[in-house]
Amino acid sequence: MRIAIDAHGGDKAPAAAVEGTLRAAKELPDAELILVGKPEEVEPMIRAAGKPSNVTLAAAEEVIEADDEPAKAVRRKKQSSMVIAGRMVREGQADALVSAGNTGALMATGLLVVGRIEGIERPALAPILPTMDGVGMLALDLGANMDSTPEHLVQYAIMGSLYRSRVHGMEKPRVGLLNVGTEPMKGNELTKAAFEQLERAPVNFIGNVESRDVLFRNCDVLVCDGFAGNIMLKSMEGTATAVFKALKEQFTSSLWTKLAAAVLAPGIRRFRSKMDYATYGGAPMLGVNGVCVKAHGSSDAQAFANGIKQAYQEVRHQLVQTIASEFSRK
Amino acid sequence: MRIAIDAHGGDKAPAAAVEGTLRAAKELPDAELILVGKPEEVEPMIRAAGKPSNVTLAAAEEVIEADDEPAKAVRRKKQSSMVIAGRMVREGQADALVSAGNTGALMATGLLVVGRIEGIERPALAPILPTMDGVGMLALDLGANMDSTPEHLVQYAIMGSLYRSRVHGMEKPRVGLLNVGTEPMKGNELTKAAFEQLERAPVNFIGNVESRDVLFRNCDVLVCDGFAGNIMLKSMEGTATAVFKALKEQFTSSLWTKLAAAVLAPGIRRFRSKMDYATYGGAPMLGVNGVCVKAHGSSDAQAFANGIKQAYQEVRHQLVQTIASEFSRK
Repeated sequence: MRIAIDAHGGDKAPAAAVEGTLRAAKELPDAELILVGKPEEVEPMIRAAGKPSNVTLAAAEEVIEADDEPAKAVRRKKQSSMVIAGRMVREGQADALVSAGNTGALMATGLLVVGRIEGIERPALAPILPTMDGVGMLALDLGANMDSTPEHLVQYAIMGSLYRSRVHGMEKPRVGLLNVGTEPMKGNELTKAAFEQLERAPVNFIGNVESRDVLFRNCDVLVCDGFAGNIMLKSMEGTATAVFKALKEQFTSSLWTKLAAAVLAPGIRRFRSKMDYATYGGAPMLGVNGVCVKAHGSSDAQAFANGIKQAYQEVRHQLVQTIASEFSRK
Repeated sequence: MRIAIDAHGGDKAPAAAVEGTLRAAKELPDAELILVGKPEEVEPMIRAAGKPSNVTLAAAEEVIEADDEPAKAVRRKKQSSMVIAGRMVREGQADALVSAGNTGALMATGLLVVGRIEGIERPALAPILPTMDGVGMLALDLGANMDSTPEHLVQYAIMGSLYRSRVHGMEKPRVGLLNVGTEPMKGNELTKAAFEQLERAPVNFIGNVESRDVLFRNCDVLVCDGFAGNIMLKSMEGTATAVFKALKEQFTSSLWTKLAAAVLAPGIRRFRSKMDYATYGGAPMLGVNGVCVKAHGSSDAQAFANGIKQAYQEVRHQLVQTIASEFSRK
């Protein structure tokens, strides 16, 4: 198995990407990890680590930046690390691609360079959201497509279910439709139509779910349009940030509260780490004709290693083939 | 000024509604507060409080329940406390209506009984969301209309701005459009079209805002469709609930953490109370031809009193007349 890693994607690239690749290489001795990047930057780092036998380098000349216009960058920067990695997947030189780079550009790479699975209308970004029980919830689409049809949502539901059952070994993953209430006829035109179609879809549809209960894992696969999903995600992030910021202010307001906070700190750190996206790996891009994992832009070495291991599992469990075969039967 | 209070709306009705009315009556000596409810239940409570001169009773025979189908209940239960209160506003016997009852039914009452302001396509529910600085943010629509057009969003922006400037005395309230990113062309078809129209609207439009920063008051009037707004709100509520639940578990895990938690408790309580909806009053229903305030379903007496005082301010500042005059000029 060969996994291409975009060495220049992410805020801490290339150091975090290379270091993460080296870590993953030790844990995945049967995988060949291909760092796609500028040789002058990446090669010395690999050499310093003693050139592990299962880590190789594929040369790239340029980099897609975080503020590049996605589709344009993918079309023009043909020698960028991200596009080269995508091309390797399309041409069968790699089974998977991992990048922490520009999300829009990576989606464009998936769509334009790697290509869609036949029958899939819109690939979706499907991160695993943290849940209080530590199991996580696969949610899609969280930002690939801003306007969705009911048919798209049904495809998301099927792809997400296949992911949970194949890659996570979950039996009958519960599919929930993100909505403003749990009653069947709640919501807007999109969710009402999607509800009806999901009831007939080959998934374990449990009905509408509310964003209020997502952290308590009210389903295993959360289906939503990219706009609503993104609003949900950022609302959750913003609230967590605000609460912890306020707590910190309380904790540092006097000597007594500082002492008290010191006692509580380890438990709070444990909780925050459980709520950390990086622990759950990256976001698979589902519907693309090759494994494609989007690691968080702020990924450190461990997050990269987790993303690579996640890609490894997706390849090993033949995720792409499973989705392709499901949709070719239609 | 006369304010009609639905005595039977809310989880703690009629006790909380009556008690809240009695409290508000002391603070608003120039207002006549009319409790609309079943005389056999409400009258003894007023009598026990010594029958304040500015509290009266209007008899109702029935009650719209929390699980009643909204439009149907409003059409059929013509002698319910909510519908009678609405009728009093329409017929000029009251200037305002306050209810903590069934949200959908109250919106139907606003729409079908009180009626829309001429020129307003869709009245909107516009709660004041808590913000970290304690000022609050007016957000609309948060649940009255699940599908919106760009034109609706522009009307929300105008009504919200008028509320902030008239009732809250805010100069040039900043209007933000809820979106998935701050760049102008972000979002779905709805927000892209609304963005263009908002740039030309008679409001202080500051552009797209992200739900991540809502708690930090990134604008004064947040405009969104009812679906996205509701997803945002419930995501925020759910996250806050989950975080505080997890903290509580940490805090009670040993004797030391319990002691530490006791030191921090007052500060955390202060923070939670600042984040409590009830502190900010109820949600005005804007676009209805009469002041209409939706108090939270779980309102206690103080929340009712706050909702009544809010209705009082809206009437005093001629909110409805201001909105009507703005839209009659179009």
